[in-house]
Amino acid sequence: MVSIDGLAEFERIFHPQSVAVVGASTDVNKFGGRFLSSLLAFGFKGKVYPVNPNASEILGLKAYRSVADIPEPVDMACISVPAKAVPQAMRECAAKGVTVAAIFTAGFSELGDGKGRQLEEEVAAIGREGGVRIVGPNCFGIYCPAGGLTLLPGYDYPTETGPVAFISQSGGFANFFARLAKGSGIRFSKVVSYGNACDINEADLLEYLIADPETEIITAYIEGVRDGRRFTELVAKASETKPVIIWKAGLTGAGSKAVASHTASLAGTEAVWNAFFRKTGAVRVNGLEELMDTTIAFLHLGHDVGGAVGILGGGGGISVSAADDCERSGLMVPTLSPDTQRTLRTILPPAGNSVLNPVDFGAPVVPAPILRGVLETVASDENVETLIVVLITYYLLFFGRFGSNADEFTEIPVAVRDKYSKPVIMVLPEVGTEVEAAEVETDRRRVRDYYLSAGIPAFPTLQRAAKALGNFLQYRSRKLPRPAF
Amino acid sequence: MVSIDGLAEFERIFHPQSVAVVGASTDVNKFGGRFLSSLLAFGFKGKVYPVNPNASEILGLKAYRSVADIPEPVDMACISVPAKAVPQAMRECAAKGVTVAAIFTAGFSELGDGKGRQLEEEVAAIGREGGVRIVGPNCFGIYCPAGGLTLLPGYDYPTETGPVAFISQSGGFANFFARLAKGSGIRFSKVVSYGNACDINEADLLEYLIADPETEIITAYIEGVRDGRRFTELVAKASETKPVIIWKAGLTGAGSKAVASHTASLAGTEAVWNAFFRKTGAVRVNGLEELMDTTIAFLHLGHDVGGAVGILGGGGGISVSAADDCERSGLMVPTLSPDTQRTLRTILPPAGNSVLNPVDFGAPVVPAPILRGVLETVASDENVETLIVVLITYYLLFFGRFGSNADEFTEIPVAVRDKYSKPVIMVLPEVGTEVEAAEVETDRRRVRDYYLSAGIPAFPTLQRAAKALGNFLQYRSRKLPRPAF
Repeated sequence: MVSIDGLAEFERIFHPQSVAVVGASTDVNKFGGRFLSSLLAFGFKGKVYPVNPNASEILGLKAYRSVADIPEPVDMACISVPAKAVPQAMRECAAKGVTVAAIFTAGFSELGDGKGRQLEEEVAAIGREGGVRIVGPNCFGIYCPAGGLTLLPGYDYPTETGPVAFISQSGGFANFFARLAKGSGIRFSKVVSYGNACDINEADLLEYLIADPETEIITAYIEGVRDGRRFTELVAKASETKPVIIWKAGLTGAGSKAVASHTASLAGTEAVWNAFFRKTGAVRVNGLEELMDTTIAFLHLGHDVGGAVGILGGGGGISVSAADDCERSGLMVPTLSPDTQRTLRTILPPAGNSVLNPVDFGAPVVPAPILRGVLETVASDENVETLIVVLITYYLLFFGRFGSNADEFTEIPVAVRDKYSKPVIMVLPEVGTEVEAAEVETDRRRVRDYYLSAGIPAFPTLQRAAKALGNFLQYRSRKLPRPAF
Repeated sequence: MVSIDGLAEFERIFHPQSVAVVGASTDVNKFGGRFLSSLLAFGFKGKVYPVNPNASEILGLKAYRSVADIPEPVDMACISVPAKAVPQAMRECAAKGVTVAAIFTAGFSELGDGKGRQLEEEVAAIGREGGVRIVGPNCFGIYCPAGGLTLLPGYDYPTETGPVAFISQSGGFANFFARLAKGSGIRFSKVVSYGNACDINEADLLEYLIADPETEIITAYIEGVRDGRRFTELVAKASETKPVIIWKAGLTGAGSKAVASHTASLAGTEAVWNAFFRKTGAVRVNGLEELMDTTIAFLHLGHDVGGAVGILGGGGGISVSAADDCERSGLMVPTLSPDTQRTLRTILPPAGNSVLNPVDFGAPVVPAPILRGVLETVASDENVETLIVVLITYYLLFFGRFGSNADEFTEIPVAVRDKYSKPVIMVLPEVGTEVEAAEVETDRRRVRDYYLSAGIPAFPTLQRAAKALGNFLQYRSRKLPRPAF
């Protein structure tokens, strides 16, 4: 359980001044080699001490035979020596007074045999008795840009911090989320891959994140939890002040079988987890895409967002399926007021469009004054709480890359949002998917970044936008019943 | 109803030797201007006659005051004059002996008023009596690369033909599918945006496509159908020899409201359409992504594909959620045989992996001999019918772009497929999503194209791969009950 002292200890864990890389190597195919090069490439500002009994220098840094030989204090040790050598490395860490060991090494309880479990218990006991906290084993460690730390493969993660925390039982997903976040505008306070969690577990991390002023949104990839009651209580508590977005994997037969061999935890049944989400108010997502999309929604949407959406697109098919997508995600597609419809009729050409909702421009590319006029008119309609606009990326294809006034179009949704104080969500579908269309895709990403930096969430498909908005609204509208534990 | 004569007529419709562009313009913001420039850019080989009473030359071509003034025969007229001028244009087409008119113009029955409907009936009657078949009105026309034809916005579509036909009640989706297909390896026999379908409708097109030797896979975006019984019979008939993949939109309350104003058809209820899919054996998809993915599966998978999948990935979280995704899509994730597990243990490092199914390499990047060894071992397991591999794109990030042996890794799945005659499916997640990662994304697309050209379906996520494979297997395993009409 994380006490007040524990919180201070966690601060030291996330912001080490010095890191020993135990099992450092020049071979980037080895975990120790990859982590050392990642840490240096990422730009860790503190001291880095490679530890390897067979080297005097690694990647230009003086190497030490053991942690004991390091002449200065060590806050964190990242351990990637073979499993059987981990207890000795931990004993050296304890003797040295290391605060935390991130044990990347696998070959512990996830093996599913007595030997692996015994070894893990031995390691945990050394940590407990020697005052060394443990992340892992069988993990990728911690990414905390403010601390200058990165995950085992995270050489090129964003160096800026952000309000999102991610705790992940999978090292792979910790890496994917941190990496994909680069293009989605999501920035992190902390990402923790905690693996087998022989000491610090998902509940400990959650308790810390509830108090952590750097964290506003808590996200998690969970396969199974160790102490269901404590975890449930903490998620319910966290959800009162910070959204907790959870991707729970391993609920199918095949998935739960895989959980056991991955992190030696119990997956639990669908019924148990359904009750968990009902009780706690956590936001449930299924898959990395939905996790990212929902995080984007929470980052950019505020209390002024409502579920009555005005959908604006070009080419009627988009509108029909857009209405389907919105309704399936729990949104409403209200009829526009007669006044709005009348005004739209004066702006849009007489045919080939729709002034109902979804509003169909009749073509995927329209002149800027029409785009502006329609957006302003729909934004003025009091039946509409939120605008979803699906009409920008085609300009890139037809005009943007030929140096015309693409910027003028692009800025209209931002101007309308500001003028009417009505939230806008952008859908920016890929339009160039072939090898030769790299420039179109790059332009599309620039447009996405423009909207994200203007505080407007942007998604590649309407389906994903609607789902993310639906998830956001479900969290917000929830009147949390006091869970009875 | 399409008779034998009708089929021959359809051949002429799809392969016109000469096209009159009625309402041609130099302004690409106008439909007539965009279509003329599209047709020329696409490279139509036949004669093109711009028709505009106020111009003598458009885009370097001699312009005619009316269709009547064109001195040579005209097979197809593409009409984009205002709605009220369409009857006169149609009369001229009839007098000229034009085979088919594609009427892009909107402002007919989709307006929902008596006037629009009356005008559409007038136009249909002129066509019927004058022997001019009609595509539309309120549509984007026909893309038929073998005929040199393209849709209204289709200036840059693939010029190669392929076995996929797409009939779409939405011009927008006809365009999106044809355009996105560029990067997905899907090539088309015909794409038809048929809009209000005042003459040629979805059932006529279907009847033609059943007989069309150029078409092997029929895909459709449907909002509502005119003659439910005939359409159902034809889809059931088609499904016996060619898969029919249908995205039915407008089934929610909001969606069905939008259908009426889009193409003036009736959306129908969920129950009716559930029965339709049960009866006909058509493959049901929801959304453009699933439509594309499922088409890719049908293009590349054969009768040797089975639903017992061996999943191979790196980083255990992928494996757990991969198992979830597969089971949710109706696939099986069988336990590997004891022999297979034993052999895998000799290849993989002693820890940090899983030799169960999903097989976890323990890292997203492994040496080539390990990749080959694991793939060959799993391919040899008789419990496994199909391999899904999620392990290649990370090479791009860590090695590929730095000029090392990325090709060696990339080719392994193809070699294993060939050696063991066991189908392989690739999952190639995006790894670089930021503006600066354009090169990584381009490399990823190259790898995707390599697999597609080797006959291996490739998808960006495991979820999408599993869904596409599930859809394929559902069609194939179906013992079609003779539908009782």
